[in-house]
Amino acid sequence: MIESNKVKKILYGGDYNPEQWPEDIWEEDMRMFRLANIDVVTLNVFNWAMLQPQEDVYDFSKLDKIMDMVRTNGLKVCMATSTAAHPAWMARKYPDILRTEHNGIRRKFGSRHNSCPNSPTYRKYSVLLAEKLADRYKDYDNIVAWHVSNEYGGECYCGNCEKAFRTWLTEKYGTIEELNRVWNMSFWGHTLYDFEDVVAPNMQSEEFLWDTVRTNFQGISLDYRRFMSDSMLSCYRMEYEVLKKHMPDVQVTTNLMGFYKPLDYQKWARYMDFVSWDNYPSFDTPVSESAMNHELMRGLKQGKPFALMEQTPGVSNWQSFCTLKRPGVMRLLSYQAIAHGADTVMFFQMRRSIGACEKYHSAVIDHAGHENTRVFREVAKLGKELSKIGSQILGTRTSAKAAIVMDWDNWWASGYSAGPSRLIDYKKEIFCYYRAFYENNIPVDIISVTDDLSPYRLVTAPLLYMCKEGFDEKLCAYVKDGGSFLTTYFSGYVEDHDLVITGGYPGKLRDILGIWVEESDAIPEGKHNSFLYKDETYPAEVLCDLLHLEGAEALSRYQEDFYAGMPVLTVNRYGKGRSYYAATRSNPDFYRTFIKDICEETGIPSLLETPEGIAPGIEISRRENETAEFLFILNHNDEAVDLTLTLNAPSTDILSESTYLPGASITVPGKDVVVLKRVK
Amino acid sequence: MIESNKVKKILYGGDYNPEQWPEDIWEEDMRMFRLANIDVVTLNVFNWAMLQPQEDVYDFSKLDKIMDMVRTNGLKVCMATSTAAHPAWMARKYPDILRTEHNGIRRKFGSRHNSCPNSPTYRKYSVLLAEKLADRYKDYDNIVAWHVSNEYGGECYCGNCEKAFRTWLTEKYGTIEELNRVWNMSFWGHTLYDFEDVVAPNMQSEEFLWDTVRTNFQGISLDYRRFMSDSMLSCYRMEYEVLKKHMPDVQVTTNLMGFYKPLDYQKWARYMDFVSWDNYPSFDTPVSESAMNHELMRGLKQGKPFALMEQTPGVSNWQSFCTLKRPGVMRLLSYQAIAHGADTVMFFQMRRSIGACEKYHSAVIDHAGHENTRVFREVAKLGKELSKIGSQILGTRTSAKAAIVMDWDNWWASGYSAGPSRLIDYKKEIFCYYRAFYENNIPVDIISVTDDLSPYRLVTAPLLYMCKEGFDEKLCAYVKDGGSFLTTYFSGYVEDHDLVITGGYPGKLRDILGIWVEESDAIPEGKHNSFLYKDETYPAEVLCDLLHLEGAEALSRYQEDFYAGMPVLTVNRYGKGRSYYAATRSNPDFYRTFIKDICEETGIPSLLETPEGIAPGIEISRRENETAEFLFILNHNDEAVDLTLTLNAPSTDILSESTYLPGASITVPGKDVVVLKRVK
Amino acid sequence: MIESNKVKKILYGGDYNPEQWPEDIWEEDMRMFRLANIDVVTLNVFNWAMLQPQEDVYDFSKLDKIMDMVRTNGLKVCMATSTAAHPAWMARKYPDILRTEHNGIRRKFGSRHNSCPNSPTYRKYSVLLAEKLADRYKDYDNIVAWHVSNEYGGECYCGNCEKAFRTWLTEKYGTIEELNRVWNMSFWGHTLYDFEDVVAPNMQSEEFLWDTVRTNFQGISLDYRRFMSDSMLSCYRMEYEVLKKHMPDVQVTTNLMGFYKPLDYQKWARYMDFVSWDNYPSFDTPVSESAMNHELMRGLKQGKPFALMEQTPGVSNWQSFCTLKRPGVMRLLSYQAIAHGADTVMFFQMRRSIGACEKYHSAVIDHAGHENTRVFREVAKLGKELSKIGSQILGTRTSAKAAIVMDWDNWWASGYSAGPSRLIDYKKEIFCYYRAFYENNIPVDIISVTDDLSPYRLVTAPLLYMCKEGFDEKLCAYVKDGGSFLTTYFSGYVEDHDLVITGGYPGKLRDILGIWVEESDAIPEGKHNSFLYKDETYPAEVLCDLLHLEGAEALSRYQEDFYAGMPVLTVNRYGKGRSYYAATRSNPDFYRTFIKDICEETGIPSLLETPEGIAPGIEISRRENETAEFLFILNHNDEAVDLTLTLNAPSTDILSESTYLPGASITVPGKDVVVLKRVK
Repeated sequence: MIESNKVKKILYGGDYNPEQWPEDIWEEDMRMFRLANIDVVTLNVFNWAMLQPQEDVYDFSKLDKIMDMVRTNGLKVCMATSTAAHPAWMARKYPDILRTEHNGIRRKFGSRHNSCPNSPTYRKYSVLLAEKLADRYKDYDNIVAWHVSNEYGGECYCGNCEKAFRTWLTEKYGTIEELNRVWNMSFWGHTLYDFEDVVAPNMQSEEFLWDTVRTNFQGISLDYRRFMSDSMLSCYRMEYEVLKKHMPDVQVTTNLMGFYKPLDYQKWARYMDFVSWDNYPSFDTPVSESAMNHELMRGLKQGKPFALMEQTPGVSNWQSFCTLKRPGVMRLLSYQAIAHGADTVMFFQMRRSIGACEKYHSAVIDHAGHENTRVFREVAKLGKELSKIGSQILGTRTSAKAAIVMDWDNWWASGYSAGPSRLIDYKKEIFCYYRAFYENNIPVDIISVTDDLSPYRLVTAPLLYMCKEGFDEKLCAYVKDGGSFLTTYFSGYVEDHDLVITGGYPGKLRDILGIWVEESDAIPEGKHNSFLYKDETYPAEVLCDLLHLEGAEALSRYQEDFYAGMPVLTVNRYGKGRSYYAATRSNPDFYRTFIKDICEETGIPSLLETPEGIAPGIEISRRENETAEFLFILNHNDEAVDLTLTLNAPSTDILSESTYLPGASITVPGKDVVVLKRVK
Repeated sequence: MIESNKVKKILYGGDYNPEQWPEDIWEEDMRMFRLANIDVVTLNVFNWAMLQPQEDVYDFSKLDKIMDMVRTNGLKVCMATSTAAHPAWMARKYPDILRTEHNGIRRKFGSRHNSCPNSPTYRKYSVLLAEKLADRYKDYDNIVAWHVSNEYGGECYCGNCEKAFRTWLTEKYGTIEELNRVWNMSFWGHTLYDFEDVVAPNMQSEEFLWDTVRTNFQGISLDYRRFMSDSMLSCYRMEYEVLKKHMPDVQVTTNLMGFYKPLDYQKWARYMDFVSWDNYPSFDTPVSESAMNHELMRGLKQGKPFALMEQTPGVSNWQSFCTLKRPGVMRLLSYQAIAHGADTVMFFQMRRSIGACEKYHSAVIDHAGHENTRVFREVAKLGKELSKIGSQILGTRTSAKAAIVMDWDNWWASGYSAGPSRLIDYKKEIFCYYRAFYENNIPVDIISVTDDLSPYRLVTAPLLYMCKEGFDEKLCAYVKDGGSFLTTYFSGYVEDHDLVITGGYPGKLRDILGIWVEESDAIPEGKHNSFLYKDETYPAEVLCDLLHLEGAEALSRYQEDFYAGMPVLTVNRYGKGRSYYAATRSNPDFYRTFIKDICEETGIPSLLETPEGIAPGIEISRRENETAEFLFILNHNDEAVDLTLTLNAPSTDILSESTYLPGASITVPGKDVVVLKRVK
Repeated sequence: MIESNKVKKILYGGDYNPEQWPEDIWEEDMRMFRLANIDVVTLNVFNWAMLQPQEDVYDFSKLDKIMDMVRTNGLKVCMATSTAAHPAWMARKYPDILRTEHNGIRRKFGSRHNSCPNSPTYRKYSVLLAEKLADRYKDYDNIVAWHVSNEYGGECYCGNCEKAFRTWLTEKYGTIEELNRVWNMSFWGHTLYDFEDVVAPNMQSEEFLWDTVRTNFQGISLDYRRFMSDSMLSCYRMEYEVLKKHMPDVQVTTNLMGFYKPLDYQKWARYMDFVSWDNYPSFDTPVSESAMNHELMRGLKQGKPFALMEQTPGVSNWQSFCTLKRPGVMRLLSYQAIAHGADTVMFFQMRRSIGACEKYHSAVIDHAGHENTRVFREVAKLGKELSKIGSQILGTRTSAKAAIVMDWDNWWASGYSAGPSRLIDYKKEIFCYYRAFYENNIPVDIISVTDDLSPYRLVTAPLLYMCKEGFDEKLCAYVKDGGSFLTTYFSGYVEDHDLVITGGYPGKLRDILGIWVEESDAIPEGKHNSFLYKDETYPAEVLCDLLHLEGAEALSRYQEDFYAGMPVLTVNRYGKGRSYYAATRSNPDFYRTFIKDICEETGIPSLLETPEGIAPGIEISRRENETAEFLFILNHNDEAVDLTLTLNAPSTDILSESTYLPGASITVPGKDVVVLKRVK
């Protein structure tokens, strides 16, 4: 979250680009911000060309004016560094700054995310700009955060990147022999004799398009992903350092994008003072998927509250079908962010631009230019409400007893795998399990393989294809000590370099799971095997492991094909704990039931057990601190839902200020939310 | 049309390439042309390599022979300039003539439309060739038209084009500040400091593939489309000038291609003496869409008769499924062209080639080589008929009281828009309305925004996304003066540079329409809202405006979703006229009914009201001059249709010479046509 | 097949890459090979980088060790030359070795099949390596075959290829005038004046993507296909020559890939001592299609037994859905190969690799590393069985009275055709006919246009689009002499350069077929015409010829559309024989019936007529020599099938050693096979 020592409340605002508008409109903006209880603006996101019109000339005059106006109007500033798009003259003078695409073609000036992260020119001038900004505005005490660059992304395959990749590899592996080993270069006679032999893996070398980008050498492509993430992280860190040098007390972040595959955010987060992210659900994104994104973002810094840096107040411009956010939905999704750990709620953007590709992206102030719009009214209403809530939620935490392990290396590696099925989808597999917790109203953290497992009673690691150095030992200790562990098919196959662990799948997890997976049968799209669980038949899709019990017990067995009768769900008692294995993919009904059962067995309660069972479309989340707990009940349905509260103490909805006794009935209107506060 | 002072009839012939054949076959061609009443041939379409075998050598010997033979045989000539494909040696010697693709890769020699329109080499030698041709053949009085190049097309993104683009921009905008303004370059920090900073918008810079080519900067891409159209037009005009210098009395054209998106034909037509075009319906093209293409082509020169320069006599070669033109269909589509304004009917081609990619395209003389084919017999029958008709139709005009506005800038700009829906389709929207007129047998012109509106009682401008400078005022004057105007959702948003007109949609059209469109909801593919019109429920698809009445009256309201009850069809009384607004896309039944009603209200009659109502598959069109009118009744059905004629005077079918009294019944056989002449 | 003068049996083994493993694992490999009765290994497939670590340094030390170990363990060696992937240093030092893609972009180091076949560097060093190998290992008498390179492929469009193409063309056509003639370069003014004007046909010149790669000039693209196939063949032949120089008695091959479009295997086979190929059916490949591939491979050397060089023992890694080979299926498909002419059965690969893209491809020794796997058990069982069978099948031949003509030029040319339908598919059309023979249990050879027709009673040439020089005369002589001939729509159109034979389709086949095809109507996907054959109605799809009888007799006529009543199936008595024509595409039921009837008429019996008729899923094939015949009965069903044998002599199943009398019943279990031997 963005911390302000002036405004003790959920900060509320968004991206503001007055430099795109004539100055006579600025005062009108201020008036409307006041109407909507806006208290923070993100400034200077894309101004490099304005700030450095020539190589030796910097011009801060307009930004000075903007900064002064904003300060005068009592607004906090989230200050961006403008380095997400370089100036046109720089591209013309120093073409090394231009990215080379995956097909090998160098770009010209244009677009954004357009700088090669290993360009000497980019690194020199981006850091210099950040430094000049920090130095110039260091005395503005309304700067509450730094926002480095913007939505980092944009891979490059140029000669400078190849050089930097060779250096990165030399540092990581030391010798060419070790590089040959970890990439298995004796295959297809690819043995290298010199680091200079290394080329970037793209369409010109090892990669190709099939259903998505595929590669001949998973090890090379995987390392290039790591290298690219590190290259951009290094750009971020260079800016971070100079900002901190001048304003050591202001927190620095960059806006992330949820499940964004190219960047290993878990590694990035170590170098961010707080996490912020941009939430743009598509017209058909389930609300549970948005919730999962929030969980991931919260987990990046072990539960520390984060900032919702961007969301659209009404409509996005880049979707196939830009459906409107229905009345109440913007507010509901804002509370969803808060419910999952956000302490800041911001929009992209404050005033809608009139030209280029985002002009049909919604804004607080629409093209109509006045406050008499549905969108503005909803923004203002929420602004008033957040002011009323004040500081009480700030800093509260989610306390989960269940965790899902998510790991970028696993996402990359399982995605590059040649075989066993193109339907293998790491994010989708995680979502299958996440949704099961979500639908059971059971809080869950999304953690990395380096996080502490001890707070959890159940650790789920779907598709743990790559079991990284030390993680197997950590899991063993955790389960031995009484924890429960759940994993799935296509787990434990490889070590950190995507080299198979021989001796039988699932490799280093074989002992803890008590099974041996001899073979795996890919199920073509639209087909399935099946299994029985608690008298219900469920489909077995994507992949079916043919496994043998080596200590584990079968909870269910396949019903069809030549491997009918083989175990498909197993549990292994290991030390004081248990390890579960799901040898296939099934459907949401199965996951909901299965997770419910495991949670019951491991003593993880639902946040709200209603006598009527769980109501579809109702989302429950909880934040708490030493003195109080806040139970968020969100109703994503169009219609009102009645719930009987099985709470054990009186609670007060901090929005309506109604108080509910234990066992009371509560009606949550459609697209509405209650936040029940209970003092501990 | 092609005018000949020798043959006063609809000229009949086609592309003839004797240089691809041994000379001993030429006399046989002449014999067969006579059999088929062929009187005109297009010569010299692709002979540059033959005519200029080396840089300093020209060789007209074979073309001389061909010209003499053709003249001797009494044939008129439509003389092409051969500049649509440069010689191989030129590509090798002067690579600047080779186009650079949208992906940034320069082409090698090959294909056609292969010259960069801004290549100095191309411009020098294409004009020189045209001049040499004009000078050499200026005394051939059987040349009835010049045919410059062929089916212009082929965009380029090379360095020469970038240079020329910078010049074009400098001339248009004067200063870099103005360029930054119109392209909104403060967005994403794209501000330019020098025209030299401009690069072509392609895959290397601002454009990318989504469902089609998309762009980050609509303004840049839009100007590049204009520039490319202008670049090719400039090539055309340079040839035009030298041709006219030598043969001032012969009309000059180039063959267009109907709704061809890359070139702004409305601008081109100003520099063409008459319009000619190539009509190649696909196996699944509705006949009404062919009719719409004819209407567009006729409108380019304000109703002046045009030439059908190419059509296949039987089968096209390049379609997915090259279905045969059924018996009678070639004749029927030829009369369709005439019915909509053609005074010339020509084929591609006279003799079918034996090699390369068009060898399975049908020709008058097939690979069989003799006259005993179905295709030849149909060609000969039509030839005889056109000779019999003589001059009576020549020069007659269509007189329409309804018009549809079509504008290339709008096609480009709405296609580049990021949001609100990828289903937005300018041509399709126009077709929705065109088809409604067509099915009601109501003549309609397709006009440009610069055309005079006063001849019309109803002007329809679907998807008038960009309301160009002055057009709003013209519309206001027109409606004030009693005209009716109809437009749709996603209209009035931007001015000429794709910058949004702030203050509320539909911008400058808000007053005339009496509405304010606050928001627009994109409807995902396969979904719909609905509305009631005249007791029928119709779907609302693609986009649903949420609009407020500001003087207009609602004709219908949405039935579903949170905006149920909001207006979806409106009419506004404005001055002496009316403005209609359709806030969504609906289905053909709706448009047919809605247009019928508006036409009745505005006093625009159907060409043929039959007691039985309008027969599906029957197409009615009319041409007339001071002394006579010709009513074309085309039956696209396989079966005969009986009609009762509600004409007010006796008419004679100029094909069958049958005469019909008012109120008479007429049977039009399947795939047949009658042309009823009524003397005024 | 691979011939060994030591082991008189079906050789059994596969690709073995011990250099990818530590040496301590090698002895374990030897142990497991013995367990599985493995007697041959393919070595050294991808070792170039190991063998030539620097330009002037060769290092055979590890290969020496491997060769010695293998010899010591009594294994035969199929010795590869390692030239299918060049070393990384070579790509860095000599970039001419890198291929240029179809889009014009040059590759970097990576992948395999990565060498430009016209690279001077590649040719120099690949041949040198082959020579060094042959010289070094010439005294290893356990080398039973040479395996040049691996699965040749990988087209190139670089400058060296363009130069070599010009030389190839000069040699073939002599003069630029002749080149212009055969490519029909007067079309679109493409006339060349110098061989230097020639460029490679790719995305930069004449080719483009539509549903697949298409071209403007079929002649150019066709010659480039021939040239590319020849270029790689030339590389192969250079290695062949040096291998034979040193080991004249060892047979040389390269592993082919069945219906592999880029290479004209019929031309290649002339330079191969025996044919070997890699059989990788996909999860949805019909077994009949695998059988067709075997037939094609066997036909390449006129029936000589071939080697199954690669198959997966369990699962492939590169498919969309890598389904397991069901229990018994690996064995069944191995016998299918033998049944169709294989004398060698080999796997890719012996031990599963741990890194890069084939690590999830099955192997005899799995990642588990021991013999207790289903796959190993099945391999070992088959190994034992093949040892037991011994030499009795070796060298036996298939004797077929029916042949299908397959011709690479026809595959290429019909695929490049612009029109009449994108559904035209040469391989699919051949399969329609092949499957009909297969389902009737009628042996059929797949032959080339240069093969002798006299052994056959029926020659089928589906889609004989290009009737090459002399083949029409050969067909005439064959039919006059009593043979039966069957061809289809889109036949006889062009000569060897894809130039249409004028005068009426099907060109030079018109006389023999007694028909004239005036027009052809493409049928859009999902639509059909129909015809009646023996009281059953069958669909007419893809293309419907409108033909006239010129001596032939109609066997059936269209039922629909304007050409209802025109002939769709015809037969023409010609000399002592008959010519059949199928003017359209129909369904499997039709082909099965039609081929059955023609075979009955021409006196070609089924291999096994059972009283119950033909059982689906049963495949019958026969091999024989002077003394015995072997009838293979394969049951591809999951369930057992009972058959009544209509054999005329007692037979013994060489697998089970059961003997069956004429008229006996036999039960073939599901996924099982019997091989009935009958002594002549």
